[in-house]
Amino acid sequence: MAETVSREIRLKNRPVGLPRESDFELATVPIPTPGAGEVLVRNLYMSVDPYMRGRMLDQPSYVQPFQVGQPLDGGCVGQVVQSQGGKWQVGDYVLGRKGWREYYVSDGAELTKIDPNLAPVQTYLGTLGMPGLTAYVGLLDIGRPRAGETVFVSAAAGAVGTVVCQIAKLQGCRVVGSTGAPDKVAWLQEVAGVDAAFNYKDVGSLTAELAKHCPNGIDVYFENVGGAHLEAALDHMNSFGRMALCGMISHYNETTPSSGPHNLRLAVRKRLTLRGFIVSDHLDRQAQFYNDMSLWIAAGKIKWQETIIAGIENAPRAFIGLFKGDNVGKMLVRF
Amino acid sequence: MAETVSREIRLKNRPVGLPRESDFELATVPIPTPGAGEVLVRNLYMSVDPYMRGRMLDQPSYVQPFQVGQPLDGGCVGQVVQSQGGKWQVGDYVLGRKGWREYYVSDGAELTKIDPNLAPVQTYLGTLGMPGLTAYVGLLDIGRPRAGETVFVSAAAGAVGTVVCQIAKLQGCRVVGSTGAPDKVAWLQEVAGVDAAFNYKDVGSLTAELAKHCPNGIDVYFENVGGAHLEAALDHMNSFGRMALCGMISHYNETTPSSGPHNLRLAVRKRLTLRGFIVSDHLDRQAQFYNDMSLWIAAGKIKWQETIIAGIENAPRAFIGLFKGDNVGKMLVRF
Repeated sequence: MAETVSREIRLKNRPVGLPRESDFELATVPIPTPGAGEVLVRNLYMSVDPYMRGRMLDQPSYVQPFQVGQPLDGGCVGQVVQSQGGKWQVGDYVLGRKGWREYYVSDGAELTKIDPNLAPVQTYLGTLGMPGLTAYVGLLDIGRPRAGETVFVSAAAGAVGTVVCQIAKLQGCRVVGSTGAPDKVAWLQEVAGVDAAFNYKDVGSLTAELAKHCPNGIDVYFENVGGAHLEAALDHMNSFGRMALCGMISHYNETTPSSGPHNLRLAVRKRLTLRGFIVSDHLDRQAQFYNDMSLWIAAGKIKWQETIIAGIENAPRAFIGLFKGDNVGKMLVRF
Repeated sequence: MAETVSREIRLKNRPVGLPRESDFELATVPIPTPGAGEVLVRNLYMSVDPYMRGRMLDQPSYVQPFQVGQPLDGGCVGQVVQSQGGKWQVGDYVLGRKGWREYYVSDGAELTKIDPNLAPVQTYLGTLGMPGLTAYVGLLDIGRPRAGETVFVSAAAGAVGTVVCQIAKLQGCRVVGSTGAPDKVAWLQEVAGVDAAFNYKDVGSLTAELAKHCPNGIDVYFENVGGAHLEAALDHMNSFGRMALCGMISHYNETTPSSGPHNLRLAVRKRLTLRGFIVSDHLDRQAQFYNDMSLWIAAGKIKWQETIIAGIENAPRAFIGLFKGDNVGKMLVRF
């Protein structure tokens, strides 16, 4: 290990609206030294996720806000490069929570050892990781689709959406996905095998578009977007339909809140259930998820795509790209 | 029985916006004659309910729309005045579905015999009837409050709200009610025994008002109103809170849909469940409801109030009054 310094990305200002690269700064610090029982991890990949936008606000939420002047954090995959005792070996691949930096020291409590033989290590940040578990729990436990039902997924070509679409197909559902680019439509149709996909930027009316693709209405809506997508889904929901509210990315950069769905009152007449969820409340499902997903991947039943940006200095651009639809599948930064 | 004619209220035009009395017409028809196995019922009370506004629209819903030129219908309590065989005796009090008319013939299939000794017969249109069951199911099965939690009820002095408030108190909850008149605030505090009640027309900010009364946040919101009430409730909901969506009366007379809650995205961060329900899906709970409610009434634990308008010719005015807050508790028309 020739390097003696570690680069990290700090929050420079709390962003207003769509984050700019100038809201972040690249800093250089000495590589920390592990103490007794600790390990030094060199990151290989870090995750950028839409939920991180909320952590850039100075308001209480389900995770601690990021602090101005401090490095950001988040999901990452790295390799142990020094081990001062404990159960970790140099060379172990680990899933951690100290992204946005090249090196970090850990006592191991928040590390998970990962198996590089099952899938490429970065998959543990995507389909085999938090986005995959989010899709699994949100669809199966919150949405509860039954075979033959119609599942509509927004942001269908994202890290979560791609997995939702494919698990829904495995459940025997009709699956319709909305996404924002022609190549994503093609991937959803040709690789993920959805029944219908469309580019929402190309359609005049989302409600009319859904009418075409959901002739029997929508039973489960997996909500990643909010706004017009939510309104159109409400219009087409069947009685006793379920909405799994995973996120509403269209609202994350608003400086003044936009109005909500004008047709929310349909939730009464149609007896809908709208349920927000956060994956970290459902870690009791992780073992079953991991078991199922490993089998599905091994059998070639779940496919995925990644958008990989090289260099920690480009992590802010990768993050900002999430809100512009720059990613197909999981957005990752490779160090 | 000296009368030979029966008066009935027909829908003259489909209302636009707040219904007007001119949207209805009073008609006179001969009293019908019961055939073999049928009974003739003379109505004593009829119910007017907010849900009837939806039936005045020509659109599919969970109940058949009313037809222009035809009599309206709805919950009613009457007395059998002729019986041509079958199990019914002249003098029996019956709960029926043919309101908005003085007399009707029935084969008995949709009649329920009621016990005038337990409570005044019109109570079967209110606390012991559909509004009571709505409150019971919506609070206990949809809202699922636990002792010590805070329950917020909008339209708290209405036929449903009054019952919700009192059942929530019986569950050991802190109960906060919103209503639209000082006498209703007083009734809620002094008779229903809620912990706090306020007149929403007198407060500058519903969100600030709720902050005063719900120091520990809101765990269950019983939604009867929509609009600003829903937004303020979303602001104060605790994590894992439940919203029982019973109705949204503030929207029923809109000619163009108003915007929805600007803060609905809080449902994700707070992991809220919003669930619409309709009482007719929950008739399997009727026996348990009736058992519990009978005991509560006999023990003096549930109180109620009625606003009674005399004369079928005034039924349209009674119905319209629901949207103006003319009623305290159940709105009834006495024949």
